Amino acid sequence: MPINKGGTASLSSFKGREAFYIEGGIIMTEVAVLGATGYTGFELVRLLDGHPQAEAVFLSSESHAGLKISDIHPQLHERTDLTLNKMRIKDIPKTVELVFCALPHGQSAEVVSALLENGVRVVDLSADYRLKQAALYKEWYGLDHPYPSLLEESVYGLPELNKEQIATAQLAANPGCYPTSIILALAPLLNAKMVSAGSLIIDSKSGVSGAGRTPKQPFHFPECTENFKAYRVASHQHTPEIEQELGRLAGQDMKVTFTPHLVPMIRGILSTIYLEPAALKTEAEYIDLLSSFYAECKFVRVLDTPVLPETRLVRGSNYCDLALKLDQRTGRLIIISAIDNLIKGAAGQALQNMNIMLGLDEDSGLGQVPY
Amino acid sequence: MPINKGGTASLSSFKGREAFYIEGGIIMTEVAVLGATGYTGFELVRLLDGHPQAEAVFLSSESHAGLKISDIHPQLHERTDLTLNKMRIKDIPKTVELVFCALPHGQSAEVVSALLENGVRVVDLSADYRLKQAALYKEWYGLDHPYPSLLEESVYGLPELNKEQIATAQLAANPGCYPTSIILALAPLLNAKMVSAGSLIIDSKSGVSGAGRTPKQPFHFPECTENFKAYRVASHQHTPEIEQELGRLAGQDMKVTFTPHLVPMIRGILSTIYLEPAALKTEAEYIDLLSSFYAECKFVRVLDTPVLPETRLVRGSNYCDLALKLDQRTGRLIIISAIDNLIKGAAGQALQNMNIMLGLDEDSGLGQVPY
Amino acid sequence: MPINKGGTASLSSFKGREAFYIEGGIIMTEVAVLGATGYTGFELVRLLDGHPQAEAVFLSSESHAGLKISDIHPQLHERTDLTLNKMRIKDIPKTVELVFCALPHGQSAEVVSALLENGVRVVDLSADYRLKQAALYKEWYGLDHPYPSLLEESVYGLPELNKEQIATAQLAANPGCYPTSIILALAPLLNAKMVSAGSLIIDSKSGVSGAGRTPKQPFHFPECTENFKAYRVASHQHTPEIEQELGRLAGQDMKVTFTPHLVPMIRGILSTIYLEPAALKTEAEYIDLLSSFYAECKFVRVLDTPVLPETRLVRGSNYCDLALKLDQRTGRLIIISAIDNLIKGAAGQALQNMNIMLGLDEDSGLGQVPY
Amino acid sequence: MPINKGGTASLSSFKGREAFYIEGGIIMTEVAVLGATGYTGFELVRLLDGHPQAEAVFLSSESHAGLKISDIHPQLHERTDLTLNKMRIKDIPKTVELVFCALPHGQSAEVVSALLENGVRVVDLSADYRLKQAALYKEWYGLDHPYPSLLEESVYGLPELNKEQIATAQLAANPGCYPTSIILALAPLLNAKMVSAGSLIIDSKSGVSGAGRTPKQPFHFPECTENFKAYRVASHQHTPEIEQELGRLAGQDMKVTFTPHLVPMIRGILSTIYLEPAALKTEAEYIDLLSSFYAECKFVRVLDTPVLPETRLVRGSNYCDLALKLDQRTGRLIIISAIDNLIKGAAGQALQNMNIMLGLDEDSGLGQVPY
Repeated sequence: MPINKGGTASLSSFKGREAFYIEGGIIMTEVAVLGATGYTGFELVRLLDGHPQAEAVFLSSESHAGLKISDIHPQLHERTDLTLNKMRIKDIPKTVELVFCALPHGQSAEVVSALLENGVRVVDLSADYRLKQAALYKEWYGLDHPYPSLLEESVYGLPELNKEQIATAQLAANPGCYPTSIILALAPLLNAKMVSAGSLIIDSKSGVSGAGRTPKQPFHFPECTENFKAYRVASHQHTPEIEQELGRLAGQDMKVTFTPHLVPMIRGILSTIYLEPAALKTEAEYIDLLSSFYAECKFVRVLDTPVLPETRLVRGSNYCDLALKLDQRTGRLIIISAIDNLIKGAAGQALQNMNIMLGLDEDSGLGQVPY
Repeated sequence: MPINKGGTASLSSFKGREAFYIEGGIIMTEVAVLGATGYTGFELVRLLDGHPQAEAVFLSSESHAGLKISDIHPQLHERTDLTLNKMRIKDIPKTVELVFCALPHGQSAEVVSALLENGVRVVDLSADYRLKQAALYKEWYGLDHPYPSLLEESVYGLPELNKEQIATAQLAANPGCYPTSIILALAPLLNAKMVSAGSLIIDSKSGVSGAGRTPKQPFHFPECTENFKAYRVASHQHTPEIEQELGRLAGQDMKVTFTPHLVPMIRGILSTIYLEPAALKTEAEYIDLLSSFYAECKFVRVLDTPVLPETRLVRGSNYCDLALKLDQRTGRLIIISAIDNLIKGAAGQALQNMNIMLGLDEDSGLGQVPY
Repeated sequence: MPINKGGTASLSSFKGREAFYIEGGIIMTEVAVLGATGYTGFELVRLLDGHPQAEAVFLSSESHAGLKISDIHPQLHERTDLTLNKMRIKDIPKTVELVFCALPHGQSAEVVSALLENGVRVVDLSADYRLKQAALYKEWYGLDHPYPSLLEESVYGLPELNKEQIATAQLAANPGCYPTSIILALAPLLNAKMVSAGSLIIDSKSGVSGAGRTPKQPFHFPECTENFKAYRVASHQHTPEIEQELGRLAGQDMKVTFTPHLVPMIRGILSTIYLEPAALKTEAEYIDLLSSFYAECKFVRVLDTPVLPETRLVRGSNYCDLALKLDQRTGRLIIISAIDNLIKGAAGQALQNMNIMLGLDEDSGLGQVPY
Repeated sequence: MPINKGGTASLSSFKGREAFYIEGGIIMTEVAVLGATGYTGFELVRLLDGHPQAEAVFLSSESHAGLKISDIHPQLHERTDLTLNKMRIKDIPKTVELVFCALPHGQSAEVVSALLENGVRVVDLSADYRLKQAALYKEWYGLDHPYPSLLEESVYGLPELNKEQIATAQLAANPGCYPTSIILALAPLLNAKMVSAGSLIIDSKSGVSGAGRTPKQPFHFPECTENFKAYRVASHQHTPEIEQELGRLAGQDMKVTFTPHLVPMIRGILSTIYLEPAALKTEAEYIDLLSSFYAECKFVRVLDTPVLPETRLVRGSNYCDLALKLDQRTGRLIIISAIDNLIKGAAGQALQNMNIMLGLDEDSGLGQVPY
């Protein structure tokens, strides 16, 4: 039994479907997590355990079906007895109001489509419904999108930018980890038309959990620790997602140079972003612009100099920390952002989307102070 | 403003003193944290931020007085505006019902005594009130104890063993990190008189946060990472505390060989304990004995073989995981325990003590699933 | 082309076979490394690159045959053009005088037997020829030994104890990493009959490279870093090897309790060994005994208190560092040893054996200062 | 006694001074290391231990004078008995031919000047003689340079570019770690006038040993591990050194945006460099250009795609690995370089300079394969 449950009442309804369950007078929303044994899936289960108004009641795992999730993730020992199921949509309880889909890209597309038909709401953590153009999906993921028409229906689930559309969406496409760290850093300046088109260079660094839970040579401890490297230079599949959202903010096509790197740490993404400003302002004015843009956003913290973002300062939390520096000698702006890739970059943001979709407080279950 | 506050009503009174404060109908207990910038102090502030019925209202720090705690620990940025104060007892608000004392040993003794005189309740995280004999304190800590008479008044704050006394104590001496991991592992067998006196060998391994926040050569990253070593072999100051509590459980004097080691990780203690059993039982019977002993204890998990404790499986949580193996070839028992040294080994256990002292649910604010 | 080659002349002959090759007047011994892509195999190739009188001329790898070793280990880029071959004995050049066999246990037995028949000398880094009793091999490795008669012929390749036999051996069974760290620590006391039989408890901690190069879940970076755990408690396959050699030194059967642990670092083993002394001596006397025992051994350093062994202090070198403490309170002795598991625990010791077998200086190519 | 000594004869003379010492017919050059206990100083002592033709005979340390270096760095136990001396120039033996100055910047200037007057040759590892303009030194290091006239005399000790001048120099200013990784990456394109001025953005990442051996809060293990951050954004003191040397290669003033980051690992620097090419070539043509430029340089390896530089692939060696990618979508070039900051970025390069100055093989004592 979850220890932490509790909280005030809430009621969500979506297109006439009203699924809830009452525990001590508190309305609990039932949710499912598909792909529950990966790092993102486990993180969802872990965060849901502490959510006062939502409860995971169905978990799926293709490779471990039949086992308990606590057999795979013994952290959950004595916390949940939930068993892992093969992903059959008919087996998802009818009381489930919202489904988190943490399946690999390519697999998610099909499942999400079926869920939507059943009238369930979905937060899809895969890449399958993030790109608006099926051609880009084909180019970067090598797959024909089976449901191109759904690409338009889906809402890009970055709450700081799209809160209203998320509230009423049936399908929220949860952003990628790198894109989250990058789009949040650039939105204020792009929105104010202060970025010189074509000048964007993004140098991102990620902890190893971003590579998933399957053991592979580059993530084998003796080769991964005490090492630093770049990978998929100028060819990472998050590039079109970044460009799509930056372009939407800028109101024009954006092309970026994007280089991801692997840091020998479990969690965290730090992005260092270089750009030529399209306006002549002081560093303080740019920082003010960031601060005002995010004045109402609980999860974005604009740091005052001289404090700079560090991944440990957001670790375990849903925060995105931002700082901006004007290189006086070259006139360039440098924006630095830090997130926990598994929280704000995945499961935490997914819960934030759920909260908005269900009409709950945006930060319900997401109050962790970084550790 | 803390995000997470909420919960049901509670009322604590101690010797006629009733300090509480009402927020939305919920009674909040006000507490103070002395020594708030060390790792244990910060962890207390962090955990209190998520506690539904207690709130830190006063923080002290000798070295950083005048600054905000979020200047020292920017994780707390936008979470609290609390300022750090010099430790003057008269400056602690009268509404404070309980004080966490996370000062260095030697400094704590004096402060705690003064607090007790003021009628405040105290959870002391230092070593100053753990030993019952002032002579042992002198021998192992090199100091004359200034208030030997208070040593008897204090309750050893290991809730799994001393819950009733803690409930009514004015002073709970929060156990050391190593002793917590060791005493919980051995209590069931000692209580059942199944340990051969003189046979105990304890080989413990701790993460680096146990050494505190002050930078020193052995904890400088390039010399600490990619390294493993023993330290204070057969001379660690936790030895008498371990022996005192094991002796109390055994009903006879206990001498142990205790070797601590330093692991290149932030958090976690794993203790590997060797003993000759005083009874002839099967491995399963010993494991049953552990399980029954802790049947009512939410924070102790007795693992079924083949799963063994790992520090990551309790990281960030208040759990103590235990496993037992009978070495069939030599007849020895091997008990392995794992805790997070900053949570169950310090701040979490202190909150657990506070919960018990205030009549709250023992696990209030301590529901974190390991991450 | 190796950069480092050079040195003075040497001549080795074994049973009439004289294989050598002259480069600038220096006699180079040609050797082969079977299983060259594992961590031990690579370490052999790396150390041989710096050896002035030996050169690897044949490498095998079942999984990567056809590729260059520098494709698998790009550290070797521009250092060697050697290609990886399937392990067919007839393909090993006739000029090869000595073969390092770094194949998995079970596979090695067969190959070594064939090599010996061909008259080649072998240093076998697998476990296949370490145990003298085929029954123990069956019990701990689950395999019938195909060549039990060869078990007697093989020499246990711990140079500090068996240098003379190694010099003339055709087959040296290179010790396991844990056994090396343990036997060297105990040999002086056992040899002096100062260990109480039945009192030995060995608590060892190893870096992750000891688990090999194949990616597996427990060694996946996000689950391996920031974690500490025991494994194969009282059941590790090195146990009979340890007991065999300790028994030989003691002149009586020895049973030990042995618990290995996994440390989140690449290299290094630290063993903490507990025993009841069978004699009444001072700590200084015991330390003297260790120092005299190893007076002529370049690779064993007996540390004066208060310096204790740390794995970083032997990292990258062929040293074994030792320290001893007498626990005055319980009368127990605690011996601590540290080695680099890939060097003194595997490839370095194998080279040391080769040097002895070929009549070279024992430390030729093994002069690395720890880094 | 060093184990590894040996090698062929060599003779160096500089301005009539002939200092050598013969051991078994081999000429050994005597050298001194000032500032021997820092990480760079220790690395020099460690590498010199394995150098066949040079021997450290004098070590200095202000803070540890009177102790043996093996007391501070027990890795050297039983390898050297050298004692640490206060830095008094008159105490340096007259037989010392070359001095490595690994003192902090500011302190080095004075000492180097005195050494030069004594006719000794110097490799200065500090920043004091790298900048040609005293005004820049004042601007970035905050100090008036006491010997501005010597700035012209000193040779920038990057052997791949300035080998001839180094050979006859009395003072070689050993490059900074970041500049080494950056200048080597850019030299071929700058030399070929293929870099658009003003387009350079350099995003560098360094292991923690680069911050030195003095314990400080940001390098305290619990705050440094599992963390990633930028520091001194657009204000790092290596900036003018980078710009000076790039400008020299380009034949015009260069301004760069330079952001250093801290990686939780001991050793290694990886620099990711972005630029607009001033020519229209294919990726393969650019790579060829790099390869030809460094065809004769043993320590620079230009990797073929798809292999990319990783810090582990050069760890412990004097290599600089390079790779180049053309971002087809934006037309930008991305060059990635990796070095070991303590070897090619400091002590190894200093030895390489010494070898050149003494007329030895450039790679003498620097043959380590990365580990």
